[in-house]
Amino acid sequence: MNRAAWAEVIGSFFLFCTVIGSGIMAETLAGGNTAVALLGNTAATGAMLFVLITSLGPISGAHFNPAVTLVFRLRGDIAAREALWLVAGQLCGGLAGVWAAHVMFAQPILQLSDKVRSGTGQWAGEFIATFGLVFVILGTIRHRPQAVPASVALYIVAAYWFTSSTSFANPAITLARALSDTFAGIAPASVPAFIAAQFAGALAALAAGAMLFPREEPAQ
Amino acid sequence: MNRAAWAEVIGSFFLFCTVIGSGIMAETLAGGNTAVALLGNTAATGAMLFVLITSLGPISGAHFNPAVTLVFRLRGDIAAREALWLVAGQLCGGLAGVWAAHVMFAQPILQLSDKVRSGTGQWAGEFIATFGLVFVILGTIRHRPQAVPASVALYIVAAYWFTSSTSFANPAITLARALSDTFAGIAPASVPAFIAAQFAGALAALAAGAMLFPREEPAQ
Amino acid sequence: MNRAAWAEVIGSFFLFCTVIGSGIMAETLAGGNTAVALLGNTAATGAMLFVLITSLGPISGAHFNPAVTLVFRLRGDIAAREALWLVAGQLCGGLAGVWAAHVMFAQPILQLSDKVRSGTGQWAGEFIATFGLVFVILGTIRHRPQAVPASVALYIVAAYWFTSSTSFANPAITLARALSDTFAGIAPASVPAFIAAQFAGALAALAAGAMLFPREEPAQ
Amino acid sequence: MNRAAWAEVIGSFFLFCTVIGSGIMAETLAGGNTAVALLGNTAATGAMLFVLITSLGPISGAHFNPAVTLVFRLRGDIAAREALWLVAGQLCGGLAGVWAAHVMFAQPILQLSDKVRSGTGQWAGEFIATFGLVFVILGTIRHRPQAVPASVALYIVAAYWFTSSTSFANPAITLARALSDTFAGIAPASVPAFIAAQFAGALAALAAGAMLFPREEPAQ
Repeated sequence: MNRAAWAEVIGSFFLFCTVIGSGIMAETLAGGNTAVALLGNTAATGAMLFVLITSLGPISGAHFNPAVTLVFRLRGDIAAREALWLVAGQLCGGLAGVWAAHVMFAQPILQLSDKVRSGTGQWAGEFIATFGLVFVILGTIRHRPQAVPASVALYIVAAYWFTSSTSFANPAITLARALSDTFAGIAPASVPAFIAAQFAGALAALAAGAMLFPREEPAQ
Repeated sequence: MNRAAWAEVIGSFFLFCTVIGSGIMAETLAGGNTAVALLGNTAATGAMLFVLITSLGPISGAHFNPAVTLVFRLRGDIAAREALWLVAGQLCGGLAGVWAAHVMFAQPILQLSDKVRSGTGQWAGEFIATFGLVFVILGTIRHRPQAVPASVALYIVAAYWFTSSTSFANPAITLARALSDTFAGIAPASVPAFIAAQFAGALAALAAGAMLFPREEPAQ
Repeated sequence: MNRAAWAEVIGSFFLFCTVIGSGIMAETLAGGNTAVALLGNTAATGAMLFVLITSLGPISGAHFNPAVTLVFRLRGDIAAREALWLVAGQLCGGLAGVWAAHVMFAQPILQLSDKVRSGTGQWAGEFIATFGLVFVILGTIRHRPQAVPASVALYIVAAYWFTSSTSFANPAITLARALSDTFAGIAPASVPAFIAAQFAGALAALAAGAMLFPREEPAQ
Repeated sequence: MNRAAWAEVIGSFFLFCTVIGSGIMAETLAGGNTAVALLGNTAATGAMLFVLITSLGPISGAHFNPAVTLVFRLRGDIAAREALWLVAGQLCGGLAGVWAAHVMFAQPILQLSDKVRSGTGQWAGEFIATFGLVFVILGTIRHRPQAVPASVALYIVAAYWFTSSTSFANPAITLARALSDTFAGIAPASVPAFIAAQFAGALAALAAGAMLFPREEPAQ
């Protein structure tokens, strides 16, 4: 059994299920106050990220995100074959997580979102959001690896609020959210530009990280 | 004196008192905005879990939850007799905590909830919630034991939002909440199916944990 | 100079200023939704407690609370003379903090609250709140001293919500809040019973702590 | 390349972008409930501070704040030339961050705020806010350096609520916020008094810190 791929399956299941499920719960309860709904969605997502990265990080790296997996592949930290297994795990687990959220909230399992998310502002948002995510991961790994769960979780907490797109910052989650016509959904037609912006941001962060967090220097 | 059982008594007292009391406070103050009420209920429950697991974990394991105690018994971490003492402590302390919340908020001490919580969606919610709780405990103990208080607390923060049942995930708390006709209550008739789903989720997580977090491997 | 007393002065200044100031801010902005106001008040108080205990704990113990100082005196951790200095610092610094909050929010400096807080429920609340605070401090010091700032901060976060009195749990802050006719105030006539319940809770926790967290046992 | 200056550029970019961007998002979604908007703004700012100080602290100290840089210069921790580079980085990165927020939210890039923030109360607020920030930094560095990210982040969480000015506590961010006519803005005419109060608070904290946290004493 490929333990790392299974870790990505289970982790992505819970992460994506949390993003979708807490979005449904929050929107249902918030009575039209979207800021209150976003607070609930934010707390749940950040909390779950901390938990999953703490439990599963030592097994698979706890990426749950093909853009992050690509970055670690390009840095040479993982083999190409390993990267493919991880991404497969992310997609399968994540999709199952979205469907589980639909089951729990007694919704049709198969859905397509019609929430258009588009425009230069939102694409800039996804570029900046993913740049920041990867940059923060590289910096925290370099300086204080045991803080990675808290750093990633809190980065996403902030990014849900400071970006105009509420920060998807993850190609797998973008695909999965297209399959949910709920609070966290995104129309399929809006997906390709989001994913392109995400990969561009991740690659830019890889370059910036190589400059600011060079590996040769002894750890502090 | 059985120190571990007393730790479960005091811990369950404060945990259950927090779940019920913060539910009453939140609903009273929220003026009908249930999402705001759930935010307060979530913050209080998560914070109290961190605090109690930090203070009492080294004495009893800080389970406060018969499903968790069962899992540790099945793993062979504790003796059957010890497990019974812990569960007895959870039920007695937890019940006292519910009643203390009623006293504090000047409510009748003896109540029965009439809030029906039922249906496949909610049962799926309890299965997934308890699976995740036990899975996260096993993974965190395996990889980073000192993070258990934060992991469990933040898992419940997330689970209050991403599951349709707001995640009871605890047979003792399910019984106790049946005795409170407040925000956090559950009608007695809804209890058996919730508890069955919780034990099923816990056992499934025990199996998944044995696969993903085998004990033989040296700690990282 | 008595450094420990000065640490209590500055710490109590910021703590009490935060309790009063964030209460004014929260109530002003919340437009009548008291649950939202309490969320802001809770976040500010919990955050400030973490910060002050981290910065000042090694100097004075960071009590900011005569009930806590009494408990450490009765345990024999500090001398009587030292305890008196700490309490004097708490009262002076705390009072200055309340007045500073009034200056910042352009209110009359000298005020008396007329918010009656009374009844068996609220007294039970203060007893339970202070019992829990002292119990958690003793347990965390015993098992994981470096977690004291997080434990105390998160305990108060929970206690603001699960007790009917919103958990003053501190005789000095009870006195100081009588001098502020704002969100966090308490009528002077309600003060004595609150303080009596607080000391009773603290002494009960001292006894419970001696049983559950005996000192002879080697640290884990 | 001056790595430290670049760290301040990127860190200030994300910090200021978060302050402005989350303010826009929060105000847009909150439907007039300013307390809810401030909760979102607070969570995002605090979370981002933790993340940036964790990732960039070992490179530049992660000041993102000329008042903090001045304090470390006056303590002799950094050279004058280094301090100038850091401040230049803060201003350039921070300004870019404000403009990036405007781009993301499809607003005009160049703006001037017309939100007057003035009066003795608010100036007292900035003095106290900056005093506390610098005091907490010096105390945490002295007693528990690894807690600096959490301490600074949580101090700002508290300060957003307990000060009447919502705690700018940072001359660079005060300048930058003058260039954004949004939730977090400040009219240019209000800027000089805010900055004067901030530097005064920082210098007072430097003096208080020298008294309470002397360097000669061996670390605990």
